[in-house]
Amino acid sequence: MSRESYWITDPADLLRVRDGFELSKADSRASPGFDGDKQAGQAALAEGAVILAELQEQLFAMSRMGDERRILLVLQAMDTAGKGGIVKHVMGSVDPQGVHFAAFKKPTPDELQHDFLWRIHQQVPGAGMIGVFDRSHYEDVLIGRVRALASPEEIERRYAAINEFEAELAATGTTIIKVMLHISRDEQKARLTERLARPDKHWKFNPGDVDERLRWNDYAAAYQLVFERTVTPNAPWFVVPADRKWYARLAVQHLLIDALEAMNLDWPKADYDVAEQQRRLAAS
Amino acid sequence: MSRESYWITDPADLLRVRDGFELSKADSRASPGFDGDKQAGQAALAEGAVILAELQEQLFAMSRMGDERRILLVLQAMDTAGKGGIVKHVMGSVDPQGVHFAAFKKPTPDELQHDFLWRIHQQVPGAGMIGVFDRSHYEDVLIGRVRALASPEEIERRYAAINEFEAELAATGTTIIKVMLHISRDEQKARLTERLARPDKHWKFNPGDVDERLRWNDYAAAYQLVFERTVTPNAPWFVVPADRKWYARLAVQHLLIDALEAMNLDWPKADYDVAEQQRRLAAS
Repeated sequence: MSRESYWITDPADLLRVRDGFELSKADSRASPGFDGDKQAGQAALAEGAVILAELQEQLFAMSRMGDERRILLVLQAMDTAGKGGIVKHVMGSVDPQGVHFAAFKKPTPDELQHDFLWRIHQQVPGAGMIGVFDRSHYEDVLIGRVRALASPEEIERRYAAINEFEAELAATGTTIIKVMLHISRDEQKARLTERLARPDKHWKFNPGDVDERLRWNDYAAAYQLVFERTVTPNAPWFVVPADRKWYARLAVQHLLIDALEAMNLDWPKADYDVAEQQRRLAAS
Repeated sequence: MSRESYWITDPADLLRVRDGFELSKADSRASPGFDGDKQAGQAALAEGAVILAELQEQLFAMSRMGDERRILLVLQAMDTAGKGGIVKHVMGSVDPQGVHFAAFKKPTPDELQHDFLWRIHQQVPGAGMIGVFDRSHYEDVLIGRVRALASPEEIERRYAAINEFEAELAATGTTIIKVMLHISRDEQKARLTERLARPDKHWKFNPGDVDERLRWNDYAAAYQLVFERTVTPNAPWFVVPADRKWYARLAVQHLLIDALEAMNLDWPKADYDVAEQQRRLAAS
């Protein structure tokens, strides 16, 4: 919060999933911690972009001097909730060199030959990077559960496997931020309707989107279970209201800034003799 | 050029390496095809960013409908020439989802166990992506030659291996754009001096940068050989004057726009019945 002037209350506190959280009671149109309108939100996003970019560069710089820390942002949501917009408008303000992006779609036959975490492990961010997962290992307990793609026992096993996996990432220097972008059923209908109305958006629509939409309540229940089983001290979940795209972007940007500020980053000290190198350079 | 209003002559024509090209005679401070100043160049870059972003989204969209085409931008240069700035300021305006970035540093022991193209193959862009290589397989005939990291016979073999590799990429839908950012020895000295003068830039400096600088002429000769051996019809080289950062960024942005425009992209047609999906959605 120290460098961002536009929040009235820290949204990280307000959006964090705590004991007793009920997704069914969460407001998808609210803007917790922010009392401005869309225009103010967009101005704040631009202000935050400068802050985020500098912090990211420091994270990246410190990794060059041996710092092992990194960030993993997990994005989960129903279709159209705005994962792509987060990537474009929040991560888009950061140097692409420092971002590792991975989208997890329906597993390939090759991926299905392995444990569900196999393909995930391959995409975890390296030191100094901000990793972004567009969908993730959580699909294996979301669509996996709703569509019964694995046995109930296997689904149960996965929550524990996920917690262990994330604990290992945290232990090796990863700050994990798990975000569910929360939209209402009506808002999704409006967004899918727009995609079908615009030929330049047709490619973003898939008939399967309607199939999944028909299971809305099953997905809501599966998300509720995810929160109950996989909120851990080092891998919190945040439910971000996403009916207003500008708010969701601003909130996720803040979660990243917040995580970076907690690292007490600075420009790393040179590990060579600066004066000596200045002499060598002058003579070259 | 059709959508960019700010060029007086197509820089792709002016910067392309042709028979008889001599690096030693290339002006690193020129701004071929552009007659404005830095401010005009920055305004043009912002204008081009909008064009590039739309074309990239179309490339990405078409891949979702089975189009196999993709772009590979190879960036090579002496230290401080501005590769990082290209990534940040040119690629930074594009949706991160559609960019695959790979930096090739000193090979690891694991990488050295394999043929020099092994690690490169793993990073080639998928369909619909713009791949960006910050350094590349060309290091193996640049520092490889200058530092005699392989036998002369092996270095010779590599040019042909590179040409075959790139021909294969081209045959499978990759538009290859190879860029050498060309700075002068004096400009490099000024930039390295600045890095040493600013504590927030110390992490970007490495004493080895001065070692390589002392081999300036050997590198120039190695680049000249690269141009003579690896300019092929489907994998051209462009030498981009880079003493003025704003010009180099604008020129590389143009090379990408130019490649995308040559693809005659458009929004893909829906592969489903739009009216039927509209009815299903309305009922959902």
